[in-house]
Amino acid sequence: MTTTLIVLAHPEPRSFNAAWAEATRAACAAAGDRVLRSDLVQMGFDPVEAARHYRDTGDAFDPLKAQETAAAAGTIPADVAAELEKLRAADRVIFHFPVWWFGPPAILKGWFDRVLMHGATHSVDERFDTGRFRGRRALFCVTTGSRATESGFDGREGDISMLLWPLAYALRYLGFTVLEPELVHGVHGYHREARKAELEARLRTVLDGQARVIAGLPARAAIPFNADSDFDGAGRLLPDRPSYSGFIRHEG
Amino acid sequence: MTTTLIVLAHPEPRSFNAAWAEATRAACAAAGDRVLRSDLVQMGFDPVEAARHYRDTGDAFDPLKAQETAAAAGTIPADVAAELEKLRAADRVIFHFPVWWFGPPAILKGWFDRVLMHGATHSVDERFDTGRFRGRRALFCVTTGSRATESGFDGREGDISMLLWPLAYALRYLGFTVLEPELVHGVHGYHREARKAELEARLRTVLDGQARVIAGLPARAAIPFNADSDFDGAGRLLPDRPSYSGFIRHEG
Repeated sequence: MTTTLIVLAHPEPRSFNAAWAEATRAACAAAGDRVLRSDLVQMGFDPVEAARHYRDTGDAFDPLKAQETAAAAGTIPADVAAELEKLRAADRVIFHFPVWWFGPPAILKGWFDRVLMHGATHSVDERFDTGRFRGRRALFCVTTGSRATESGFDGREGDISMLLWPLAYALRYLGFTVLEPELVHGVHGYHREARKAELEARLRTVLDGQARVIAGLPARAAIPFNADSDFDGAGRLLPDRPSYSGFIRHEG
Repeated sequence: MTTTLIVLAHPEPRSFNAAWAEATRAACAAAGDRVLRSDLVQMGFDPVEAARHYRDTGDAFDPLKAQETAAAAGTIPADVAAELEKLRAADRVIFHFPVWWFGPPAILKGWFDRVLMHGATHSVDERFDTGRFRGRRALFCVTTGSRATESGFDGREGDISMLLWPLAYALRYLGFTVLEPELVHGVHGYHREARKAELEARLRTVLDGQARVIAGLPARAAIPFNADSDFDGAGRLLPDRPSYSGFIRHEG
C-alpha cells in the first residue's frame, strides 16, 4: 500500500489551496493510499528553530548541533517527532501552498528548517545520491497570484522553477525524487466579489482534474538535478556536465 | 542624519551572525547613524500570517484582503505596525542571517510575509519602478555553511545569488535598491571545539572589516533588476532586453 503525506501551508480552511489539498486527499484515498496530513497552520506548527525546543543546548544554541544531539539522544522535540514519523512513513509527499513574496509561506519554510533534522534525516554520508529518502517522491501543488506569462522564465514575477528550486533541492538533498510541479496561476482575490465566479470555475476544473494528476504521478517527469559525480572535490561542477545545481538555464 | 534598520534572524545571541550584526550596529553608530534594530527571535516575532492577527476577516481569511483592509482602517497588527514604523524611518536596511535549507530562516521569510503589507507598503500602482521605498537601500549580510566554491554559480550547494533573489526581488518590488550581498562562507560548527579557533579568527576579520563595509555602502554595486519598461503588457520580457527577472544568467 502506498502511503501519501499531504503538507498544507495556508491559513484559511476555505481557501483555494485547502480545497485543492482536500481533492488530493480524496483522490489518494480513492486510489487506496493510506493518507497522512499536516495542515501546518491549523496544527499551530511553530516554524521558528530556537533553543526553546531543546532540552540542553549548552553554552550557546547551534541549530545543527542541537538537532544532531537530540536525534542521537532520542530527545527530538515532540512536534518534530510527529512530523518525522509521517515523513518516514510516506512513499510520497505532496505539498500544497501559495507563493508569497517569491517563495513558500514562512510556516512551510520552518517545517523544512525544523523537521529535516540533521542526524535524523541526513548526515554528511547520507545526502543527495546517498540520501536516506531515495525512491520516495515529492510533488509541489502551488498557486501563484501572477499570470502564467509573469511566472515564466522571462516573466516579471520571477521564474517559478527558480522560486521553487530551494525547496526542491532540500528534498533532493534528502534523496527524494522531486516531480515537476503542478501550478495554478492567477489565484488572488478568491474571497472578493470581483473575481469569485471566475476563480470558483477555475477551482472546479482543478478539483475535477486532481484524480488524474494523482493517477499520473508514477509517470510524471522529475525535476533534473546533478548527480554527485558531476561535481569535483570542491563542490564545483565539472566542465563537461550540464548544470542543474545553481541556476536554471533557459536556452529558448 | 541617516537612519539604519538592522534586521537579525538568528536564534542565538552569541552566534557568528549576532556578533556580525553587532559590528554593523557599532559601525553605523560610529558613523553617526540613528540605528534601529529588529532581533526577530529575541523579539518573539510571529512569522505566521493568519486570521488571528486581524480584527475582522469576514467569512474567510484572505491574507492580501486582510492586509489591505487593516491598512485602510488603521487596524494593523501591533507587532507589524512597530516594524513598519522602523522600516518607513530607515534610509537603509541591513539584514543579517544564515542560509538554512537554501533560503532564509522561516522567521525572516515571515517578516516579509507580514510586514511588507499590501496597502501599507505597496499597491498595484506603487511597485517596482514606482515603489514607495525608492531611494532606500538594502544589504544582505549572510553566512553559508558551504564553501565559496559550493555556493558559486556552478556550485553544488546552489548559486547564492539565486538563493537570495526572492528576498532581493521582494525589496525591489517595494522600490528598494538592493546592494550586492556581503557573504561569509563556511560558517558551521562555530560552537564546536573542532572549528572554534578557525571560525573565531574568521569572525575577528569580519568584525574588523565591517566599518569599511558600512563606509563603502554609498559606492557599493547594486543587484541589477529589469526596469518596468523592459516587460510587455503580459509581464514578459521584451526580446531585446537582458533578463534579470527570473533567472540569473552566467556567461562566465
